[in-house]
Amino acid sequence: MTELRTLKVALLGCGNVGAQVARILIEDADALAARTGARLQLSGIAVRNVNSKRDVELPQELFTTDAETLVKDADLVIELMGGIEPARTLILSALSNGACVVTGNKALLAQDGPTLYEAADKAGVQLSYEAAVAGAIPILRPIRDSLSGDRITRVLGIVNGTTNFILDQMDSTGAQFADALAEAQRLGYAEADPTADVEGHDAAAKAAILATLSFHTRFALENVHCEGITSVSAADIAAAKDAGFVIKLLAIAEKLTDADGGEGVSVRVHPTLLPREHPLAAVRGAFNAVFIEAENAGELMFYGQGAGGTPTASAVLGDLVSAARRLVLGGPQRTETTTGHVPALPIEAATTSYYIGLDVADQPGVLARIAQLFAEHGVSIEIMRQTIHKDAASNVESAELRIVTHRASEAALAATVEAVKGLDVINSVTSVLRVEGV
Amino acid sequence: MTELRTLKVALLGCGNVGAQVARILIEDADALAARTGARLQLSGIAVRNVNSKRDVELPQELFTTDAETLVKDADLVIELMGGIEPARTLILSALSNGACVVTGNKALLAQDGPTLYEAADKAGVQLSYEAAVAGAIPILRPIRDSLSGDRITRVLGIVNGTTNFILDQMDSTGAQFADALAEAQRLGYAEADPTADVEGHDAAAKAAILATLSFHTRFALENVHCEGITSVSAADIAAAKDAGFVIKLLAIAEKLTDADGGEGVSVRVHPTLLPREHPLAAVRGAFNAVFIEAENAGELMFYGQGAGGTPTASAVLGDLVSAARRLVLGGPQRTETTTGHVPALPIEAATTSYYIGLDVADQPGVLARIAQLFAEHGVSIEIMRQTIHKDAASNVESAELRIVTHRASEAALAATVEAVKGLDVINSVTSVLRVEGV
Repeated sequence: MTELRTLKVALLGCGNVGAQVARILIEDADALAARTGARLQLSGIAVRNVNSKRDVELPQELFTTDAETLVKDADLVIELMGGIEPARTLILSALSNGACVVTGNKALLAQDGPTLYEAADKAGVQLSYEAAVAGAIPILRPIRDSLSGDRITRVLGIVNGTTNFILDQMDSTGAQFADALAEAQRLGYAEADPTADVEGHDAAAKAAILATLSFHTRFALENVHCEGITSVSAADIAAAKDAGFVIKLLAIAEKLTDADGGEGVSVRVHPTLLPREHPLAAVRGAFNAVFIEAENAGELMFYGQGAGGTPTASAVLGDLVSAARRLVLGGPQRTETTTGHVPALPIEAATTSYYIGLDVADQPGVLARIAQLFAEHGVSIEIMRQTIHKDAASNVESAELRIVTHRASEAALAATVEAVKGLDVINSVTSVLRVEGV
Repeated sequence: MTELRTLKVALLGCGNVGAQVARILIEDADALAARTGARLQLSGIAVRNVNSKRDVELPQELFTTDAETLVKDADLVIELMGGIEPARTLILSALSNGACVVTGNKALLAQDGPTLYEAADKAGVQLSYEAAVAGAIPILRPIRDSLSGDRITRVLGIVNGTTNFILDQMDSTGAQFADALAEAQRLGYAEADPTADVEGHDAAAKAAILATLSFHTRFALENVHCEGITSVSAADIAAAKDAGFVIKLLAIAEKLTDADGGEGVSVRVHPTLLPREHPLAAVRGAFNAVFIEAENAGELMFYGQGAGGTPTASAVLGDLVSAARRLVLGGPQRTETTTGHVPALPIEAATTSYYIGLDVADQPGVLARIAQLFAEHGVSIEIMRQTIHKDAASNVESAELRIVTHRASEAALAATVEAVKGLDVINSVTSVLRVEGV
């Protein structure tokens, strides 16, 4: 066997994922060399404190606090530090030195992706980030390459395991949000400060990345409308269940065409009702899945583990081996060039169905008045169901009304809900949730 | 905008998929050019009869019966004729001329893949065949690239829509095989001669391709153990349902390690019981899905349409755009080199669980004798359930015994079943089916 070329790999960060990447690079060195055509030599691991305790035992001499020097001498740089700085500066430095970069930094990509993409284009080197969305699931490469001859029309993703675990717990046990969150924290699925997950910020960053690749247009975090799951109640979940739905936090990117043929993309994250028979409804616990609708391919779904050190390391190494293979083959690296220029639409321009729960006065004519009000706002009702409750003690009757609308613009739906609230026969609006997959 | 380079695309075959590929190449020419960086010019369509009626209206001047001349002048060749010859000769001619080839010809790849892979390696050009397995679902590229830094341990695929439709019909309606097949034929899901589908040959070709990519070793059709679904009865389906299982025709490729640490790959196609909560169990109708277990990534599933002209065309165009992008960038093409040398194992070496249905004499001690016999063959029983039926008219009692074993070698299981048949207390063995996912 001929002597293989050696490629130097610099690893920045040694947390949960980084430690597993280092372990696999060392343990599987021979198999990776066979598949790459070059030895991938881990030249160093940049960390803040070289003496910190790690999940995995790694050679102490690999650790350094001098990330800049490490990056200067690398053929391939893996950035797993997270956060904006110094990750951004180090990635830009690596790219301008001609190194290929693999990163899982969704926050940085969503906030400042265009700067990174342009730096990679300019240097003619590859910037890969499969690990940034849906952990181990190969999703970005299929969108970028396998679907490159198709037109994606819609992406619906369960891309945050923490919130999916919490909603799944609420659905299966009837727990309230706070209790399900506490359980997720106890099991290690949620962090002590769960804000980034439960407020939808993590999913929003991933939505921006998915939208960018799916629609060949650069979308940033500011283009994503974001609502978390903190206001989803056990009553919402129960009512949804009763009506044949499950509530999921979805990252959605969809192309919309207005009456004049103008195109735009709505990118948003919000709790969403899905029919129980929808493929995404069966995604349980902390698993992730991305559902794609394309003009020719039709419906596709990609399912797997969305987090965890070892699964996410699999995605990092897939990017690393792919970039290294191209270095071995020679010739220019593949870079991303955005060819589309579809505007990001505000949430008001999105079209969805709504599920609306109302506590109404039990008197004749209420349904007719509400239906009339929807019609006046141009919102068509698909299902309207009234349930009468009688309090055994007081003998007082109350009526609960559940409405599922057809797809209409967010603006029309919001205006309708506002108007409904003003009706004297409405005691309260108990829930307003968006519906997909119907 | 600068003048784009033109790449000539030759299309061989204009059936269901070919006609859609031609349509999309013409209709979406501008979008494809923007994504590729070159104009993809359909230079001709080779067919047997230029005057045949097509599904799609296409410019008559594109049609030719002279495939050889068309191939000689092409940068990219799409082979969708199917069958072994002349497809094989034309592909080899295209590769030796330096053209990249995209094909969906699973039969040819499974029968003579190594010849094609070597010709592509030698010419240094790309041979892609995403459309050959699971239609629109991006599965080969994720295995080859995204999981290139991981080790796949097992692949379970529903890769034949016809048989999945038939089994799903039997499961949901209680129909017998013949009636479900007739329904599939009526709806266009099964061909007039359904042999290739129902005997598992189509799935076996796909299993060989999946195994080759997953284990970096070339497997051919002769390495695949193949059983179809013609002997699956309504009673089997009902018994499986009753026990919490669904029956699917699975293409399986898994790495096995023997007691001495020797590794091998078992590649097989057979009807398989899956627990109803397994992600593959929810794959209904003519849909396809591939479930992958990898050391680091864990469990992944890829789901979508496995057949149909337009969905399959999406996979063909993804391959075409990817190959064309590399032609535009310059530098050597990616070719496949197999780096692993794992032997294919005979079916006897596979380990599975078995589900065994027995009609037994209703007398004391029967269960003990059967259990003893399993133990003697080293097969461990996981579940044993006896149901007593009493015929109301005759008052004769009969007993039905259902056994699910733990994983054991096929050889041990087959020997056990043979021995059970010889017991005098056994009236008949009503079903023997393999079980996965438990």
